[in-house]
Amino acid sequence: MRILIVGASGTIGQKVVEQLESKHEIIRAGRNGADVSVDITNPDSIAEMYKQVGRVDAVVNASGGATFKAVPELTPELNEKGIESKLKGQVNLVLLGQEYINDGGSFTLTTGVMMDDPIPMGASAAMANGGVKAFVKSASIEMPRGIRINSVSPNIVLETWERLGDFFSGFIPVPAAQVARGYVKSVEGKQTGQNYEMY
Amino acid sequence: MRILIVGASGTIGQKVVEQLESKHEIIRAGRNGADVSVDITNPDSIAEMYKQVGRVDAVVNASGGATFKAVPELTPELNEKGIESKLKGQVNLVLLGQEYINDGGSFTLTTGVMMDDPIPMGASAAMANGGVKAFVKSASIEMPRGIRINSVSPNIVLETWERLGDFFSGFIPVPAAQVARGYVKSVEGKQTGQNYEMY
Repeated sequence: MRILIVGASGTIGQKVVEQLESKHEIIRAGRNGADVSVDITNPDSIAEMYKQVGRVDAVVNASGGATFKAVPELTPELNEKGIESKLKGQVNLVLLGQEYINDGGSFTLTTGVMMDDPIPMGASAAMANGGVKAFVKSASIEMPRGIRINSVSPNIVLETWERLGDFFSGFIPVPAAQVARGYVKSVEGKQTGQNYEMY
Repeated sequence: MRILIVGASGTIGQKVVEQLESKHEIIRAGRNGADVSVDITNPDSIAEMYKQVGRVDAVVNASGGATFKAVPELTPELNEKGIESKLKGQVNLVLLGQEYINDGGSFTLTTGVMMDDPIPMGASAAMANGGVKAFVKSASIEMPRGIRINSVSPNIVLETWERLGDFFSGFIPVPAAQVARGYVKSVEGKQTGQNYEMY
């Protein structure tokens, strides 16, 4: 398969690449992507990426951010990063990319554990994750030409535990390589409308 | 209690008002609200509403829209209504309203059945609903001063069945008065972080 991976150089993206590159042709995308650059908060940039890359069998997104802030300090402005990046960035990768995916291809987006198991300062990220999960489930019933769509919900990963563990009290971190299995399942498997919880 | 109801003249909002007005002081808000006008897609308008209304014990939102369009025809632009209205409109009612709610008060937002039970053309609405549900669950763990936050997920209501039933094949519509019970439970009850499924 020809697979476009957005966020290919990230902690999780790297492991997804590692697990897919022996069997597939990988195109690495990101803000400073090895093969193609994209800013997912900008629909024109997404459209330009697809124009450069052309037809693919699968799109994987392992990028997207949100502001971490307690609700009493969260403002509409601070909430915009989650809206523009993690939520709209991912939805727009689908809306603008659907015509570039070959018949029977797939999209795989990223949600995250804090929508199911809330953490302090995680409300904006949870909002974005919940939006993506519901979009995926709903969009799966009317994707054209047998195209599938799933999301993967990573737990906090071992690789960022030292830096972020304080926000995830009592969580049991998971190696990024284990989280990457969800992306492999989505790309090489046959299910659609799923949110693979890699907890 | 002093209760601000946004979308008070809508199909569901009217029933919420009917079920709360005998025991509480109701302030009716909406685009052409009986007591105060607000455009929830505009943060300045939300801030102005709260300034006019002052302190309340509960805020209920029964307003917010999204574009209904099949995924192959859905564009980033058409997806904006769901983002700006049903998702950000509701989240911003909380972010901008939290300082106006009395200790132990509550917010009650609105999601919808199509995030759980997908319908054709419902992906943008589902996205917004899923975002609101996850925000509510996550925000509930850090609302200040004992303030609670819940959402209500209405099924398709009997009152709009003739107009919208074709989009909800096989669904069993629920009277709006029954859906309104979820809002009453959220306002007068003591739970937080819930999404009451009125299916």
